[in-house]
Amino acid sequence: MPVRNHKKRLAWAAACLAVLLPVLVKASDDVTWREVNPENLVFVDLYEGRVTIELNPLFAPKTVRQFRKLVQDRFYDGLSFYRVIDGFVAQGGDGSDLGELSLVPLIEAEFETELSEDTGFTRVQKSDLFAPETGFIDGFAAARDPATDKAWLTHCPGVVAMARNDAADSSRTDFYIVIGQAPRYLDRNMNVFGRVIDGMEAVQKIHRGSANDNGIIADETKSSRIRGMALASDIPEKERLSAYVMDTNSKEFKKLLKERRNRKQTFFHNKPPEVLDVCQVPMAGMVTK
Amino acid sequence: MPVRNHKKRLAWAAACLAVLLPVLVKASDDVTWREVNPENLVFVDLYEGRVTIELNPLFAPKTVRQFRKLVQDRFYDGLSFYRVIDGFVAQGGDGSDLGELSLVPLIEAEFETELSEDTGFTRVQKSDLFAPETGFIDGFAAARDPATDKAWLTHCPGVVAMARNDAADSSRTDFYIVIGQAPRYLDRNMNVFGRVIDGMEAVQKIHRGSANDNGIIADETKSSRIRGMALASDIPEKERLSAYVMDTNSKEFKKLLKERRNRKQTFFHNKPPEVLDVCQVPMAGMVTK
Repeated sequence: MPVRNHKKRLAWAAACLAVLLPVLVKASDDVTWREVNPENLVFVDLYEGRVTIELNPLFAPKTVRQFRKLVQDRFYDGLSFYRVIDGFVAQGGDGSDLGELSLVPLIEAEFETELSEDTGFTRVQKSDLFAPETGFIDGFAAARDPATDKAWLTHCPGVVAMARNDAADSSRTDFYIVIGQAPRYLDRNMNVFGRVIDGMEAVQKIHRGSANDNGIIADETKSSRIRGMALASDIPEKERLSAYVMDTNSKEFKKLLKERRNRKQTFFHNKPPEVLDVCQVPMAGMVTK
Repeated sequence: MPVRNHKKRLAWAAACLAVLLPVLVKASDDVTWREVNPENLVFVDLYEGRVTIELNPLFAPKTVRQFRKLVQDRFYDGLSFYRVIDGFVAQGGDGSDLGELSLVPLIEAEFETELSEDTGFTRVQKSDLFAPETGFIDGFAAARDPATDKAWLTHCPGVVAMARNDAADSSRTDFYIVIGQAPRYLDRNMNVFGRVIDGMEAVQKIHRGSANDNGIIADETKSSRIRGMALASDIPEKERLSAYVMDTNSKEFKKLLKERRNRKQTFFHNKPPEVLDVCQVPMAGMVTK
């Protein structure tokens, strides 16, 4: 067993490790940031940590309106993630969506939208595997079809959407967060209404169910619970945290995409194909006092 | 705030929930399974839980040989995941790869290989975004280029590979596990030598570093530690657990792929494009007494 001096080696590693897999374009240095509108900012407190979500009323105005109301009514506080499949989704709420028991109204389908011409679309990939085009719209990964002028939010990790029954208009309260490889086949079939901008490491700690039970956690004492949710705009300004996300319309962001697409580092002995997976662009935001 | 009866509703939800996002093709029912060769089976005990890895000597014989030796020498026991970026990789080892300090030999590059004609390749996608063709070879997600006859393992979540410096032949001991959206641009550039077949939920609990520090966890007391690793073939047969993975050459598996590609459920109001992301096919194995 070789002699090891952890402390020393780790310090050294920390200094040099840009080399060992030099794969992240560091976002924070060169990008311009946009502050998230407090009305679209939700803090979700789990025992696993705090998760910060940005809502997207451009793509899902009705879903956002209902979700905001549910947060303000403290509907989710104390409820749990009752269906969690590793590599797929963590689904939370009260599980009542399926029946007639709920007093909460149903939400109409908001699977895709027509964008106005002045909506900024920063293209990532033409002829993506799942869509004619992918890109970013105000920080959100999206796809569009120039043939129909429709656009939709793509199911990337961290995406927040409403669960539903078979009927298109059957979502109501229960939501899921994507925790694994992008299930893009769900695109244009769900009310996607937000994305996690901070705290995915807490989401990843959410207790999993078994894939054989379709992720359902029968033993409620084991499931991860929502301590509480709050809309930033309901918190007094002095106490409120602010959140920032990359301005995906900025020149700097477009430059980052270009560098990711065309990797020229000597590290790459086989040059990667010049393509980008819209769900593989690191898009974490910052939450700060 | 609506009245809620968790227990009742959850039981109900459990019964009906196949409907609410009916998106996993249940693997266990209809597939034939292959037992993992104990010489390729590694148990990694973390405080977060047990992680089971299948090694792949077909694609990375030299790397597998060195990794087996390191496991047997208890090289990794007590070491930590010192570079962990959420949505990307968890990198573990002693951080000494970069220098001349290590007594462990370097490993030659094993980035791609030429397959013999009788190697079963179950195709998943022609004209994948990152490769001419993707598919499965003995349970491992792979890609190949018919023009060159080369094949390589793809960087899907759960993939285990050796970290390295700029030089192709510079990997040695430190390894990473992919924990986020497949970083496929690394394909054909790393010694991929295994994949997690069970316990990804434990991997997802590994303590993260900050993306701004390139994931490096400076405070060693916070990092997740490897309690120990063991090769199944070194454990007496009576005490040893067995592991099974789906037989990706079987008719049943090919049928599962077909159903995932062509989703006919009424749930899908916009039929998904008939494509498959090789990294989005659930491939968890089973570990059992």
